[in-house]
Amino acid sequence: MAQTPSATVLDEHNLSSVAQFATQLRVDSIRVSTHAGSGHPTSSLSAADLMAVLFARHLHYDFSKPKHPDNDHLIFSKGHASPLLYSLYRGVGAVTEDEFLTYRTFGSRLEGHPTPILPWVDVATGSLGQGLPIAVGVALALKEIEHRSAHVWVLCGDSELTEGSVWEAFDKASLHNLDNLTVIVDVNRLGQRGETELGWDIESYARRMESFGLYTLAIDGHNLGEIDEAFTEVSAVQGRPSVILAKTIKGKGVPEIENKNGWHGKPLPKEMADAAIAELGGVTNHMLTPPAPVEGAPAVSAPPFAGHALPTYQVGSAVPTRKAFGDALAALGDNPSLVVIDAEVGNSTHTDEFGTAYPDRFFQTYIAEQQMVATGEGMHVRGFKPVMSTFGAFFSRAYDFIRMAAVSQANLYLAGSHAGTEIGQDGPSQMALEDIASLRAVHGSTVLYPSDATSTASLVREMLDRPGIVYMRTTRGSYPVLYDATETFPIGGAKILRSGTSDSLTIVAAGVTVHSALAAHDELAAQGIAVRVIDLYSVKPIDQDTLQNAVEATGKRLLVVEDHYPEGGIGEAVLAALDHTHGPYAFRHLAVSDLPGSGTPKELMDHAGIGIAAIVAAAKTLAGKA
Amino acid sequence: MAQTPSATVLDEHNLSSVAQFATQLRVDSIRVSTHAGSGHPTSSLSAADLMAVLFARHLHYDFSKPKHPDNDHLIFSKGHASPLLYSLYRGVGAVTEDEFLTYRTFGSRLEGHPTPILPWVDVATGSLGQGLPIAVGVALALKEIEHRSAHVWVLCGDSELTEGSVWEAFDKASLHNLDNLTVIVDVNRLGQRGETELGWDIESYARRMESFGLYTLAIDGHNLGEIDEAFTEVSAVQGRPSVILAKTIKGKGVPEIENKNGWHGKPLPKEMADAAIAELGGVTNHMLTPPAPVEGAPAVSAPPFAGHALPTYQVGSAVPTRKAFGDALAALGDNPSLVVIDAEVGNSTHTDEFGTAYPDRFFQTYIAEQQMVATGEGMHVRGFKPVMSTFGAFFSRAYDFIRMAAVSQANLYLAGSHAGTEIGQDGPSQMALEDIASLRAVHGSTVLYPSDATSTASLVREMLDRPGIVYMRTTRGSYPVLYDATETFPIGGAKILRSGTSDSLTIVAAGVTVHSALAAHDELAAQGIAVRVIDLYSVKPIDQDTLQNAVEATGKRLLVVEDHYPEGGIGEAVLAALDHTHGPYAFRHLAVSDLPGSGTPKELMDHAGIGIAAIVAAAKTLAGKA
Repeated sequence: MAQTPSATVLDEHNLSSVAQFATQLRVDSIRVSTHAGSGHPTSSLSAADLMAVLFARHLHYDFSKPKHPDNDHLIFSKGHASPLLYSLYRGVGAVTEDEFLTYRTFGSRLEGHPTPILPWVDVATGSLGQGLPIAVGVALALKEIEHRSAHVWVLCGDSELTEGSVWEAFDKASLHNLDNLTVIVDVNRLGQRGETELGWDIESYARRMESFGLYTLAIDGHNLGEIDEAFTEVSAVQGRPSVILAKTIKGKGVPEIENKNGWHGKPLPKEMADAAIAELGGVTNHMLTPPAPVEGAPAVSAPPFAGHALPTYQVGSAVPTRKAFGDALAALGDNPSLVVIDAEVGNSTHTDEFGTAYPDRFFQTYIAEQQMVATGEGMHVRGFKPVMSTFGAFFSRAYDFIRMAAVSQANLYLAGSHAGTEIGQDGPSQMALEDIASLRAVHGSTVLYPSDATSTASLVREMLDRPGIVYMRTTRGSYPVLYDATETFPIGGAKILRSGTSDSLTIVAAGVTVHSALAAHDELAAQGIAVRVIDLYSVKPIDQDTLQNAVEATGKRLLVVEDHYPEGGIGEAVLAALDHTHGPYAFRHLAVSDLPGSGTPKELMDHAGIGIAAIVAAAKTLAGKA
Repeated sequence: MAQTPSATVLDEHNLSSVAQFATQLRVDSIRVSTHAGSGHPTSSLSAADLMAVLFARHLHYDFSKPKHPDNDHLIFSKGHASPLLYSLYRGVGAVTEDEFLTYRTFGSRLEGHPTPILPWVDVATGSLGQGLPIAVGVALALKEIEHRSAHVWVLCGDSELTEGSVWEAFDKASLHNLDNLTVIVDVNRLGQRGETELGWDIESYARRMESFGLYTLAIDGHNLGEIDEAFTEVSAVQGRPSVILAKTIKGKGVPEIENKNGWHGKPLPKEMADAAIAELGGVTNHMLTPPAPVEGAPAVSAPPFAGHALPTYQVGSAVPTRKAFGDALAALGDNPSLVVIDAEVGNSTHTDEFGTAYPDRFFQTYIAEQQMVATGEGMHVRGFKPVMSTFGAFFSRAYDFIRMAAVSQANLYLAGSHAGTEIGQDGPSQMALEDIASLRAVHGSTVLYPSDATSTASLVREMLDRPGIVYMRTTRGSYPVLYDATETFPIGGAKILRSGTSDSLTIVAAGVTVHSALAAHDELAAQGIAVRVIDLYSVKPIDQDTLQNAVEATGKRLLVVEDHYPEGGIGEAVLAALDHTHGPYAFRHLAVSDLPGSGTPKELMDHAGIGIAAIVAAAKTLAGKA
């Protein structure tokens, strides 16, 4: 590659300067991907003109202050165009030439797809159709909670418009009249393996988007003047989100590969890259400074939740944990960082109580769980603490969003109600039975499953001060309150509910099965068999010491009972936590093996072999007293 | 409840008879949910007129022959309207009065939400926004593969139209000109917790659907004549899918609760139900027979795949397992039941080879993973063996569809490529690192992770004869072929790749880590440490005997290494398979703990502690020779 020349500062008022900047973005996108030996230069070239104009004249952003609360937001929903994004960062002086050339190498911040390891990146993208839904959450927070004038810009590819999540996002952007949101679609016609479904049929795209309530413009994505006018026009639109459908050419600027299939995700070979760069005028070091943000109010305040008063419950009274969850949210609502998002089940998950008390920080996505999680993530980007709640089973709808939020290292609080066979008559479609497995496997996640109202309320407060993805599983039915308000429930802990010196085994339960385990304890005691009972309210992280000590103290006999499928749930979490050099262990695992149907909660739990009788029988077998 | 009178046969040519049938559906929906003490009568009442007309005059279906290949299909995407569906089954004589009253009781086929335990139900519904996408797959199979005249009818609720999956489905129905598909939307305005996003704004719905290419009719959903004309009209539409937007009243027929909030998912109290039933004319036993199916060709033939020739590979040659997967699909393609569905990555997952050889059974959903899985499930309904393939990470987008397919007990074949940190430079957004955990937890699933081309090809053939949800994980890079074509790979088995009488521990690996384990074996051997190496190509079901025997024979020392997050993956699967009464065990688990970035595959695997050096070090520690 050629030596980088010294910097020249561009005049952003002059479109020919902007053209120089666009050319530099092309050169840099080509050279950085060829240098790395992988990446997506052609998907970068198509959007270079759009982004050059945006950065020169419309993106209000101080790159020296990425945490400035009034910066605009720019989300590359087409995260594979990272060569372009990083070329922009180089062109505004945020990334040095040396760092630029670390693209895609081990340890570099410039990963194959952008992540918030870079301070100017709000969220990780690379799973298509996610950047826009999250941007809707950002724009919603800016407009409806923070009342700022910052604008949210999203660069989408045309391929990702076939993801349903994109249409959930358009719908919600329109519902909330998000005139601070502009979606720029780089319609370059070619996807990874050939033409996209609609190709350059801009009219069809426009018709669909207009029908969803968007202010829609169609432009030539390589005409700088048209681009500039479009950005000016959409910035002035009132009451509606806007979309710019930019007809572009994949590979634009390198004639041999322009609009050609077979060049997706392929760097140009070295000789071809050198020739293309020479043809474009060689490596340059133009610098520009985007418009400054418009100063507004200070950033949202997010005081800790620790120490805040919680609702209290009388020991022995019957309260569903989902109700205690809702009570706790409402109690904690005077913390201005708390926002709650519902997907049309707030009267079941009990987020409605928060909604009534704090309507300005309660958002309804209707039945759109992907958008619910994305809205929350957008609000996290703005510094809020977002709680999202639906039936535990339905977080499976947003699993890719949750997975990607973990890559973003976002703080999201997910509360899944109606867990397991315990829900009874509604049947298996409504039963979360794989939620613990799937959410334990999310990077850096926390998984909580309280058994009573007191511990639920306490853990709601605990979780809101915890980073990462936190999942709390709640139960549909009413069960007795076990703990009084003085008890503490640190995340990573466990409670020994029953114990004695002659315990012949340990029963580990969580959530609803704690109540069955306690009943089994009494029945076994009546038969002269003493057992220890542990409430494993924190499934991840798990309290290894308490588990190991209990097992050692009870003859190395251990029974785990859970309302979840056997794989990846509490049983495996407990096994993984044990020190196997201290075996042998007599280990039994009661979980839901057969596909459940409908029935009463008791019938279904008994049939699944996780009810009181099954626990008693398994305990007796383990204790050698069957 | 009143005594059921003796049966009367209705004349379906007379709309007043149809009205009597509709009234019976209302009476039955009320009485069956009140009898059960739970369920969704009001959501049933709104659609009773629509379904009465459909059954009387337009649904070509022989209820005595649910497997008749020319039956129309009717999918209740709003599965919570099960009281209505089961009332229809009673009214056509498919379900007796006695069975009818078992609704929602333990052991009954009449579950809270319909499942294919009932022979007239194609797929389980209850997670909203899924019935329609699956119906698109059914209609696609009927029209483009089977060339039958049967029609596919879907009953949707208005609440579920906010799910993005619904718009993926509309888009694909339109793309394929599915004029054999009619979507009936019961626009009753009220969701679970209040008004839906668009309420009775039928025009907005219509505009959006028209923009997606649907033939759209708006009708009064309680006017039998209008309904009848609408069904007649849509049956004649050519070249486009159709949608009937029926404005309805939730609770229609019970004036006190009509169009009132607060009655979602609530049965009427006994006295109120009795009064409503009396007002409607009491319990009746009208019977009708829907129109007969139009006889066509025999059902699709699905001969076994066992015994079919496979591609062969030379031991030692370097072949990516994703390539072998694609080769095997193409080789097995002359089985007429095999269909393959791609979500725009077929050139990466290697399903393109099948697409070239069998274009008539290869379908493109573009980037729409929910629709990809739904299309496959629809084809399963028609008797095909559907293979769906994308990057392993992106099946997380369709996790709720996969979960529900397990409730349907459907046979789906999912192949996820680009697993783990091994993909290298593209970074974590593209890495499947929680796929094994999430897919192991799916009810009745099978999880395969072959290490070489020979075993991959063999397991593709094996899996296609296996029922349930089968997930195969493949690897991006090229690795040596380990097995020759004479080896067999039964599902539930494992291969001992290295073993000797003086082995001091067992290393369990799968997929890419098998190659690292083999290299570690050689390095350890050079240092005088003999180790056993197991290729755990079948993660679920797991070969307990081979694992237990190996561990017992190698000093009860065990090392598991996997390119996956620690939770719910291969390590926990192996732990769960062991007999812990035979401990103590020296157990080590190498998995990906930190969030990966970009880098070469080797750098990333080494950094994650799952590379050769990490295996060697862990093995030496376990063997007491560190």
